[in-house]
Amino acid sequence: MSKPLIKVRPVGGVGQIGSNMTLIQGDNDTILIDAGILFPYEDFFDIDYLIPDMSQIPEPSHLVITHGHEDHIGAVLHVVKKFPKIKVLASPFTAGLIRKKLDFAHHQHQIVEYRHFDQLGFKDFTIDPIHVNHSIPETVGLLIKDTKEQIGIFFISDFKIDFKTIYERPFDFDKLIKHTKDLKRKILLCDSTNITSSTKETPSEQDLIPVLDGIFEEAKNRIFITCFSSNIHRLMTFINLCKKHNKKLVPHGRSMISYLNTANELGMIPDFPSVVRQADTMTGKEDNVVVLLSGCQGDFRGTFRRFCVGEDSQFKPRPDDTVVLSSKAIPGNEKKISLLINRLSEVGCHVITAQDKLIHVSGHPGRKDLQMLYEKYQPTDIVPIHGESYFIREHIEFANEVFPKATAHYFHNNDSLVIHQDMTIDVVDGPDIDPIIIHGKGIILEKEKISERRKLACNGSVFLSLKLSSTRAKVEKYTFHTMGLPTLITLNEDKFKRFLDGYFIQINFKDEEKTNEELRVAIRRYFDQILGYKPMTTVHIL
Amino acid sequence: MSKPLIKVRPVGGVGQIGSNMTLIQGDNDTILIDAGILFPYEDFFDIDYLIPDMSQIPEPSHLVITHGHEDHIGAVLHVVKKFPKIKVLASPFTAGLIRKKLDFAHHQHQIVEYRHFDQLGFKDFTIDPIHVNHSIPETVGLLIKDTKEQIGIFFISDFKIDFKTIYERPFDFDKLIKHTKDLKRKILLCDSTNITSSTKETPSEQDLIPVLDGIFEEAKNRIFITCFSSNIHRLMTFINLCKKHNKKLVPHGRSMISYLNTANELGMIPDFPSVVRQADTMTGKEDNVVVLLSGCQGDFRGTFRRFCVGEDSQFKPRPDDTVVLSSKAIPGNEKKISLLINRLSEVGCHVITAQDKLIHVSGHPGRKDLQMLYEKYQPTDIVPIHGESYFIREHIEFANEVFPKATAHYFHNNDSLVIHQDMTIDVVDGPDIDPIIIHGKGIILEKEKISERRKLACNGSVFLSLKLSSTRAKVEKYTFHTMGLPTLITLNEDKFKRFLDGYFIQINFKDEEKTNEELRVAIRRYFDQILGYKPMTTVHIL
Repeated sequence: MSKPLIKVRPVGGVGQIGSNMTLIQGDNDTILIDAGILFPYEDFFDIDYLIPDMSQIPEPSHLVITHGHEDHIGAVLHVVKKFPKIKVLASPFTAGLIRKKLDFAHHQHQIVEYRHFDQLGFKDFTIDPIHVNHSIPETVGLLIKDTKEQIGIFFISDFKIDFKTIYERPFDFDKLIKHTKDLKRKILLCDSTNITSSTKETPSEQDLIPVLDGIFEEAKNRIFITCFSSNIHRLMTFINLCKKHNKKLVPHGRSMISYLNTANELGMIPDFPSVVRQADTMTGKEDNVVVLLSGCQGDFRGTFRRFCVGEDSQFKPRPDDTVVLSSKAIPGNEKKISLLINRLSEVGCHVITAQDKLIHVSGHPGRKDLQMLYEKYQPTDIVPIHGESYFIREHIEFANEVFPKATAHYFHNNDSLVIHQDMTIDVVDGPDIDPIIIHGKGIILEKEKISERRKLACNGSVFLSLKLSSTRAKVEKYTFHTMGLPTLITLNEDKFKRFLDGYFIQINFKDEEKTNEELRVAIRRYFDQILGYKPMTTVHIL
Repeated sequence: MSKPLIKVRPVGGVGQIGSNMTLIQGDNDTILIDAGILFPYEDFFDIDYLIPDMSQIPEPSHLVITHGHEDHIGAVLHVVKKFPKIKVLASPFTAGLIRKKLDFAHHQHQIVEYRHFDQLGFKDFTIDPIHVNHSIPETVGLLIKDTKEQIGIFFISDFKIDFKTIYERPFDFDKLIKHTKDLKRKILLCDSTNITSSTKETPSEQDLIPVLDGIFEEAKNRIFITCFSSNIHRLMTFINLCKKHNKKLVPHGRSMISYLNTANELGMIPDFPSVVRQADTMTGKEDNVVVLLSGCQGDFRGTFRRFCVGEDSQFKPRPDDTVVLSSKAIPGNEKKISLLINRLSEVGCHVITAQDKLIHVSGHPGRKDLQMLYEKYQPTDIVPIHGESYFIREHIEFANEVFPKATAHYFHNNDSLVIHQDMTIDVVDGPDIDPIIIHGKGIILEKEKISERRKLACNGSVFLSLKLSSTRAKVEKYTFHTMGLPTLITLNEDKFKRFLDGYFIQINFKDEEKTNEELRVAIRRYFDQILGYKPMTTVHIL
C-alpha cells in the first residue's frame, strides 16, 4: 500500500436521497462536487430543508455542479457563504438557475460557466464532463483522472439513458469510452435511485408524447397539468402539443414560471412567445387553455394544491376539466397527493395519473440501463451512490450478480474511498454526521429545538404569570393563557382558577425557584388528569 | 315515487378510507353498521385518531359489526357512550376484541355474539350475515332484506375471495345466491379499496406459505417478522412454520400479544402453547427464534420501529438477522417505513419486503374478484363504498364497463340511498361533515386548536411577563422564555433584552390592553427580522 493519490468522500447523498455533496481530494487539490439540499425526511414541521454538515471538511477551491436539481444546487448559497473564495463551475442553464437563487438571497458570487466539451484542469487531476440524459437539461457525469492518466473515476450520480429523445443528444458513451480505454483502474460511482424499481429499462421522454397527444385530443375542455417544473423537456412537449392543438399554455405558479423563463432567456424554447400566455391576463373562464401548475408534490403552498382545494384565485376546478399528473410522488408525499386527487374526484374532474397511462418517466436508470453502463465503461470497481443505504446494498448485490468482474464497494456518507499510488483501493470508515436543519432566513435550527416544537404541537402549552405581594408571601394577582388545548379546557377556565386558588393557599414562596417548579409540575398533572397528556407549561413569578 | 322503504346513509367510510359507519333506517328501525376510526390523514401531530361525527344521526337501537379491524370497531366506545342503550352485535372473535377495548377504558357495555348462520331480525328488515374472506377471521357481509323479501341490500365493505386458504371456509356464495335468487331488486354496496391496484386477482393467504417456508429455510440466524397483528391466519402460518423448522415464536409488542391471546383464548390456534415463548423470558441472545414485532406501519411507539433503531431493550438488530416485512405500507406511511428499512440495511440485516417476494397479500378484492361477485350475485344496482372519492369514481367506471346491466350509483358520506316501496331508488345529497379529532382520554380536539398547535410547531413561542410599578407608569421587572427557537436566539438573549429595555422607555401603560397588543406585535416583528418568521407570542402585564 502506498500514498493516497485521490480520496473521494461523500459529505451527503450516500445513505439518503438528497443533499448531494462529494469531496474530491488530491495532494494539492480539494474540490466539491454538487451542493444539494435534503427535503425533510420526517416530520420537522415547516422547516425549509436540510443541508450536509460542512463543519468537518477542509476548504475547497472549486465547486463543480453536475446539474440544476435542488438536491444538487440547493445548498450553493450555504457553500459560498461558508467558503467565500470558492470558484463555482456550472453549465450555462445550471448557472442561470444558481444565479437566480443567489439574486433572491441578495448574495453576490461569480458563477463560471463550463460546457460539456470543456476539460476542467486541476493540479492533481483533470475533469471531463460527459453528457448524460436525465430529467433536467445539461446534466453531466464527471470523469476524474489523475494527471498520469492511470486511474479514472466516473462520477455519475443522476442519469438515464435515452436514445430516442429529440430534445438532447443521447448519453455520450463515445466520449466516455475514448477517454477511458487506456486506464488501468476504472472506478464507477453511480446512481442507485431506481435499483428497487420494477421498471428495468427507463422509457424515453419521447415515449410520453403520443400518450399526452391522445389526452390533448380527447379533452373536452380545459387541461390542467402538473409536473416537475425543472423538467424543461417535458414542458417543451406541452408547448409543442399546445401548438399542434391550437391551445394556449398558461404557466401558473412561481417555480413553473421561473424555470420556463430561465430556459427561455437562454433561447432553449423556440415556440415560447407564440404559445405561452400569462395567467394574470386571463379571466379564468377561458376554455381552450392548458394550465401548467407547479407544486406536483402537493406541498401546502404550491399552486397545484391551491388549485385542487379551490383556493387558487384564478382557476377553480370544474367537472369537465381534465387534470393530468405528469409526475410521481416522491416517497413521503403519496398521501398528500392522493388527498388532492380525491378532492378533484369529488368535483368530478377527469384525473389522469401515471398509474393510468404512460405520462411520466423517471430520470434515473433501471437495472438494465445500469448494466449497459457497466458493459460500455467496463469498470474495475463499482461504488453505488445516490440512494438510501437499502438501495446501496441492493445495488451492490445487483452489480455482483451482473458484472462480477468488477469489485463492488459499500460506502456511506463521510466514509472515504482512498485510491493509492499503487492503484489499490480502500474504503475508510468515517463518522456519522447528521444533516443540518435550515429554517427561515437560512438559519440553523438545532435538533433539540425540533423536539421542543414537537412537544408544543403534540401537547399544547400553558403560560401562567404570578405577581406576589410586596412581602412576597402570597399571590396578589395572576393571569394565564393556553394554546392548542381543546375547548373542554378553554370553556372551563373557572375550574382551573379554582384549582390555582386552592393551590396558592397551601404554599409559601420562600424558595421561589422551587415553588415555580412544583407549581409547573402540579399544573401539568392537573391537565394530565383531564386530558391524558401534559401541556408544555411555563410559570413566571414576578 | 312512493314512501321510503329503507334508507342507507354512510356516516363515514365513503370518500375516505376509514371511520366506517353506516346508518340503515326503516320506518321503525334505526341501526348502525360498524363504528370505525380514521387514522390521521394529514399532519395532526400526535393525535390518536378521528371518528365520524354522530351529532346529526338519530338514536340507533343496534350496532352490527362486520369484523374486528380498527376502522370498523375503533369507535365502538364513542358510540356506546353516546347511545348507552344501543345493543352491540358481533361475532365471538370480534366481540372478544371489542370487550378488550371497553375493559381498557373501564367502560361496561354488553356485547351480544352472533354467528354467521344466525339471522338478525328487526321490525322492517332482516339481516343475514354472509361469511366472506378478508385479513381477519370472522368477517361477514350483511344481507339486508325487507320483510316482504322484495329487495336485498348486500353490504360488503371489506372482503376478498379466497378459495385456497386452509384457515377458513371460502366466501359463502351459495348462501348469498340462495337467499337472493327471488328478489326483485338487488343492491350491492361494495369494497373499493383495491380498485386502482394493478393486481387484478388477489392471491390467497395460502400462496405465501411456500415463499415464507423458503425464507425460514434459508435464514442463517434469527428471523424478525412484522405484519398486521390482527391477521390471525398469517400468524398461524408463522406458528406452523416455527413448528416445522423447530423454532420458537416470540410475539413482541402489545398489540401482537393482545390479538394472539384473544385468538388463543377462543381456541383458534391449536399449536399455540408448544411453540410460543414470551419475550420477557429471553436473554435476547438466543439464535433459534422468530420474533413477531407489532407496529408494521413504523409508528413511533411501535415495537418494530424501536427494534429497527436499536431502542428495543430485548432485541437489537444484528448483521446476520433476517427481517421480513410481511405487510404493506398504508398510504402515508411509506417514507417512515423506508427509513426503518434503511436503518436495518446500515446494520447489514437481510431485509425482505413484499416488493422482493410474495410475502404479503391484500385482504381486499382486485378487479377480477369484484367481477366474480357481480356475476354470482347479479345485482341490479352497484354502489361503491369503502374508498376515497377517486376510488369510488373508478369503481363506478369499472362496474359500468364489466357489468353494464346494473346501475352504478355515486354516493358520499352523509348522502342517502333511498329505496322506495315501489322499488325505485334515489341518491339524496347530504351535508359535508368533517370527522372529529380525538386526542388523549377520548377528548375532542377542535380543528382550530390543531391550527394553533401547527403555528406553535412551525414558529416556536415567546412568553413575556411584565410587572408594572405601583403607579403603573413603568416596567418594574420582567421575565421571558422562548420555546423551539434556534440557538442563535437563546445565545443572544441580551440583544432581546436591550430591544425590550429600549421599547419600554418609549411607551406608557395608560391603555394596558392596547400596549399589550402593540408590544406583542413589536416582539413578533423583532424576531421576524432575525429569523424570517414570527413566533407565537404571549405577553402578560401584571
